[in-house]
Amino acid sequence: MKDALKQRILASVSEDLTAIEGALATNLRPNLDLVRQIAGHLLFSGGKRLRPLLFLLSSRLCNYGGDLALDVSTLFEYLHAATLLHDDVVDEAEMRRGRKTAHSTWGAAQVVLTGDFLLARSLCLAARTGRPEIINVISGITEEMSQGEIDQLDKKGKLNLSEAEYMAIIKGKTAVLIQGACRSGAILSRAPADREQALADYGYHLGMAFQMADDLLDYTADAATLGKNPGADLREGKLTLPLILALERADGPDRSWMESVISTQGFNDDDFYKLVEKLHLYKGIDDTQSRAEHHVDQAKKCLEPFDDCGAKDTMIMLSDYAIARKA
Amino acid sequence: MKDALKQRILASVSEDLTAIEGALATNLRPNLDLVRQIAGHLLFSGGKRLRPLLFLLSSRLCNYGGDLALDVSTLFEYLHAATLLHDDVVDEAEMRRGRKTAHSTWGAAQVVLTGDFLLARSLCLAARTGRPEIINVISGITEEMSQGEIDQLDKKGKLNLSEAEYMAIIKGKTAVLIQGACRSGAILSRAPADREQALADYGYHLGMAFQMADDLLDYTADAATLGKNPGADLREGKLTLPLILALERADGPDRSWMESVISTQGFNDDDFYKLVEKLHLYKGIDDTQSRAEHHVDQAKKCLEPFDDCGAKDTMIMLSDYAIARKA
Repeated sequence: MKDALKQRILASVSEDLTAIEGALATNLRPNLDLVRQIAGHLLFSGGKRLRPLLFLLSSRLCNYGGDLALDVSTLFEYLHAATLLHDDVVDEAEMRRGRKTAHSTWGAAQVVLTGDFLLARSLCLAARTGRPEIINVISGITEEMSQGEIDQLDKKGKLNLSEAEYMAIIKGKTAVLIQGACRSGAILSRAPADREQALADYGYHLGMAFQMADDLLDYTADAATLGKNPGADLREGKLTLPLILALERADGPDRSWMESVISTQGFNDDDFYKLVEKLHLYKGIDDTQSRAEHHVDQAKKCLEPFDDCGAKDTMIMLSDYAIARKA
Repeated sequence: MKDALKQRILASVSEDLTAIEGALATNLRPNLDLVRQIAGHLLFSGGKRLRPLLFLLSSRLCNYGGDLALDVSTLFEYLHAATLLHDDVVDEAEMRRGRKTAHSTWGAAQVVLTGDFLLARSLCLAARTGRPEIINVISGITEEMSQGEIDQLDKKGKLNLSEAEYMAIIKGKTAVLIQGACRSGAILSRAPADREQALADYGYHLGMAFQMADDLLDYTADAATLGKNPGADLREGKLTLPLILALERADGPDRSWMESVISTQGFNDDDFYKLVEKLHLYKGIDDTQSRAEHHVDQAKKCLEPFDDCGAKDTMIMLSDYAIARKA
């Protein structure tokens, strides 16, 4: 059932995905082979290309008639890759998408600078639109994301992280970029303000749902499907919604036990699976799922003003997929 | 004599410098106090404000009549600060401008992300001009600088670095940003293409002269004036022009001895001062000075097409100051 959805989405976007892959390779243009290697290591390791795809679909939904959309779409993947490179350095992460991270292969310094290059590349592509509004959106995203990451870093290991703090963190981490991609598709197409806002809202809700689903997978998926060990967030001291909700609701002994596990960064597998049971018991898992579903519903509602078309169908399917996927 | 030049420059730009200081504080606008602290630690530690100043002077030389110049000028200082923050992490530097570097006070992660924030802030300000040509220049600068840093990192400790390789490195490290600031001043003013090129060339030569002078100071200045220990470049494995020229010319035993010192990162003060003597002996110091003077002459020539005015006088004085300064 879930796989059927994935297949339908892939069938509807396969041409776009091929075009995006090609454009990602053409637009990278580094002077140095080392930059190509480091950037390529992450860029061509099986990313979903969700962000360029959403930009393309949004521009199509707004009847964009120009020929810039494909090249410009790549900036959202470059920007995404830039933040991932910097985040992996920041988090000292060892694995991503089932492969060693760039900074465990090259030095942190090279990886930071390659991230800067990709950031600059994004902005060159934004400038190519000749539209300062788009550049404003892109630089605004970068500002929010960098500050969001610092905020998250600052709150690492905080046991009483609130749901509101969590929402602010995942907004900065994931939703603002997806929101920006959808908004920029509307701006490029010179869509009216209400359409631009509707697409921005769609992107926001989709991004929130995606990140919540990601955070759920960190407790519920198996390592092979996930491409990294489950429980990785918790090992890095990052509390996510399933745990935040369960901690709020747990009785005294359970809460103390959970806090002791969280505080022990080297917890073992048994502890982890017992913790997952508690998350189920206190409905941390179920309620995170409900909140993610709510965002999916909201995302779909934002698309109502638009005429029915292939792009709209795909964007609806993508909303469902946000919370149905396994990795 | 040298100090008199500095005083004359300061007298001619004191109003601009005050205005730039104010604008740097107003335009920073971080959401997080931590970002303000980290960015402020570097931004307000006595930088020369050379880049915003050159942008302002260039726009004035091209008779800019709008009111954006001051705010936009700050982007060149933010961009400069962003690269310094990332470079200090990359180089694991302990001191800058006589103070502990940001990353020895805060974590490398926070500093990388604050650098990203400043980069984004620069681009927001560039977008405020509504001029995609300016955004193109800024993102192009960032691309060149990040790749230049990676190139430099890759060549660390290389004993046979050529003069051409050195020139490429200092261009990416210093000249492209100063060139971009001058060029952007012309673009903002909608100056004709030949004027824009003349100012870009001025900035390039000025930047090259400044960096060569910096590299000389690392051998000839004392620690108190320099704000860090002399010989810092060499300790980090960075060969600069005085040494490159001397190595090319040294006889067998001197060359071997110099190479052995360079390869010993923990060389002592006696070795360092003996090395400086060799740099004098083989005219590494004198000839670097001559090459820097040549760039100063070229920079001044670029200003000839412009009418005489206060901005032009200051820009001429700044060229002389590039190689006359003590820190």
